[in-house]
Amino acid sequence: MKALQTVAGGLARRKLDAMLVSAGPNIRYLTGFTGDNAALLVLPGRSILVTDPRFEIQSAQETADVGCRIRISRSPLMLDVAGAVKRAGVRRIGYEPGRMLCEAYEFLKSKLPMRASLEPVRGWIEELRMVKSAEELARIRRSVETNSEAFEQTVSRVRPGIRESDLAAELEYRMRRLGAEKPSFDTIVAGGTRSALPHAQPTSARIESGQLVVVDMGALQDGYCSDMTRMLFFGRPGPKVKHMYHAVLEAQLSAIDAVRAGASTARVDRAARQVLKRHGLDRAFVHSTGHGLGLEIHEPPRIGRKDKTKLAAGMAITVEPGVYLEGFGGIRIEDTVVVTENGCEILTPTSKELRMI
Amino acid sequence: MKALQTVAGGLARRKLDAMLVSAGPNIRYLTGFTGDNAALLVLPGRSILVTDPRFEIQSAQETADVGCRIRISRSPLMLDVAGAVKRAGVRRIGYEPGRMLCEAYEFLKSKLPMRASLEPVRGWIEELRMVKSAEELARIRRSVETNSEAFEQTVSRVRPGIRESDLAAELEYRMRRLGAEKPSFDTIVAGGTRSALPHAQPTSARIESGQLVVVDMGALQDGYCSDMTRMLFFGRPGPKVKHMYHAVLEAQLSAIDAVRAGASTARVDRAARQVLKRHGLDRAFVHSTGHGLGLEIHEPPRIGRKDKTKLAAGMAITVEPGVYLEGFGGIRIEDTVVVTENGCEILTPTSKELRMI
Repeated sequence: MKALQTVAGGLARRKLDAMLVSAGPNIRYLTGFTGDNAALLVLPGRSILVTDPRFEIQSAQETADVGCRIRISRSPLMLDVAGAVKRAGVRRIGYEPGRMLCEAYEFLKSKLPMRASLEPVRGWIEELRMVKSAEELARIRRSVETNSEAFEQTVSRVRPGIRESDLAAELEYRMRRLGAEKPSFDTIVAGGTRSALPHAQPTSARIESGQLVVVDMGALQDGYCSDMTRMLFFGRPGPKVKHMYHAVLEAQLSAIDAVRAGASTARVDRAARQVLKRHGLDRAFVHSTGHGLGLEIHEPPRIGRKDKTKLAAGMAITVEPGVYLEGFGGIRIEDTVVVTENGCEILTPTSKELRMI
Repeated sequence: MKALQTVAGGLARRKLDAMLVSAGPNIRYLTGFTGDNAALLVLPGRSILVTDPRFEIQSAQETADVGCRIRISRSPLMLDVAGAVKRAGVRRIGYEPGRMLCEAYEFLKSKLPMRASLEPVRGWIEELRMVKSAEELARIRRSVETNSEAFEQTVSRVRPGIRESDLAAELEYRMRRLGAEKPSFDTIVAGGTRSALPHAQPTSARIESGQLVVVDMGALQDGYCSDMTRMLFFGRPGPKVKHMYHAVLEAQLSAIDAVRAGASTARVDRAARQVLKRHGLDRAFVHSTGHGLGLEIHEPPRIGRKDKTKLAAGMAITVEPGVYLEGFGGIRIEDTVVVTENGCEILTPTSKELRMI
């Protein structure tokens, strides 16, 4: 895990003596530890991972290559963190304000030596995580493949009358059988006018002929996320659906075309928005064009109107414009792509044609 | 939602002018709103729910009976909370330190009027949630029934050679087909010596003849959790497994026998521990005897050695002693029960015999 050395080596530049990492995905990124109760104190020398007795065996196994010390805590973790701070004699300790609860912060503060201070550090590890290693990209690729294969296996056998919730259950079952640990988020299956809700949860409603259906799904495999949205139509779509579909597809292809190392995320967002504007649909596009993904389903960078991150080769992002007309329906098309020097590689292998059932 | 009035009516006694609720399950409990980005400012008059544009339609529908005002925020939620505080002219505002991130706290504090202060309030809403309403108990009951039926449908067809991960996938698929939204936690299926890890995740290992298997599973249905652990044995168990099994079963029955309104949670825990001690297995029982459940899979009260909560009629809790022998295996037996005046009702209908496959 070279990333841990990067953080340890970057402490001085940030005028820190130590960095306290609270977020589970950040701890996993830096150490390999996957348990859900831990704190990591990064030090210029050997870092210290604090966790509880349930993870004694697991933490030793998972961090064997990293060379951090492990402390099994039988009290609140922050008490052991304070003890480690004292023993290391460090003063300025960075912490993650967007990842730490007030209670843990106050408790830690009350146990620290007088001369120690807690300094907010925003998004440092998340920034390191934006550009993926070859190993991470291989895992994302497998997750994407599992997800698309689960979609294919399920959709090829689907018939009108199926409940939204049963279709979601089938998709998730298939991805697990193909090697996923679980879905990377709650699968969205929404038919008819409900497709106009960007965050619809599946209901027990049956999908009938004449309905547009949005399927937004992702797998979590070997710890890494995939994310894809495809549209189904039960029957034959009318001209309005066709027009909307082609507008969104054109917007999605245009945004993908704008992805390359050096381009700003706002530029990619604008590419999608301009196409939809030409079709008179820009006001129906109510969210941003995409987001990074990896150990978490939503990671930096955000691909939105006001986001100025410069894309870099090795970033994994989604591209997912959508339009939503209340009382009619919604259409979104989403791929997972990896930024390259001259463009991007589209990982998602699933056809982007409107799928007729 | 009478609970919201209870909190509003309890502000004065706690010397508060308002209570800021951050935890999603607490907001759902008080208002019915199920979206995952919200803050609730409870006021003596009409309370204010702040959420973002994705939930505009949904929040109005879900809170229709409650009579709270809804504010759709297009900026950080805490900016709108600060605005509401200003308009209401309140000074002492309670907040949930165990549920609020440092970042949100600091941001809110920086936007509040000078005379306003934030006061930590621990576990108030969680305490109200401990005793369930008839409607909540009905939902927990349905969740328990779904869970047990999914177990039965799956286990009756299971054969040696199945992978842990595939068995978990089948269990979760069945519960969804029976009406669950999803599992209430990551299903545990662990065979052989891996059953000795209390928090094992399913692997791709095949379960072979001669293996003990722990299955710990729960459904989330209509927002409410169930939780059950049962043991399978592939083949015929030897005397050591039988002895351990009967000791754990006796401990579980003894703990259930100790459950009644007025009994302390430590008393229930002790009942299980004493039986295991008699069998020389108390040191292999490395966790607490149970926990409350409802909108969350782990809620107060905790049923542990040092927990002194008095049980009350209507609390829903798990009873789940277990013993874990490294290198051999682990056994846990768990039911979901509801505390009554004179004892408890065991909701879980599944047989507690060691299930031979």
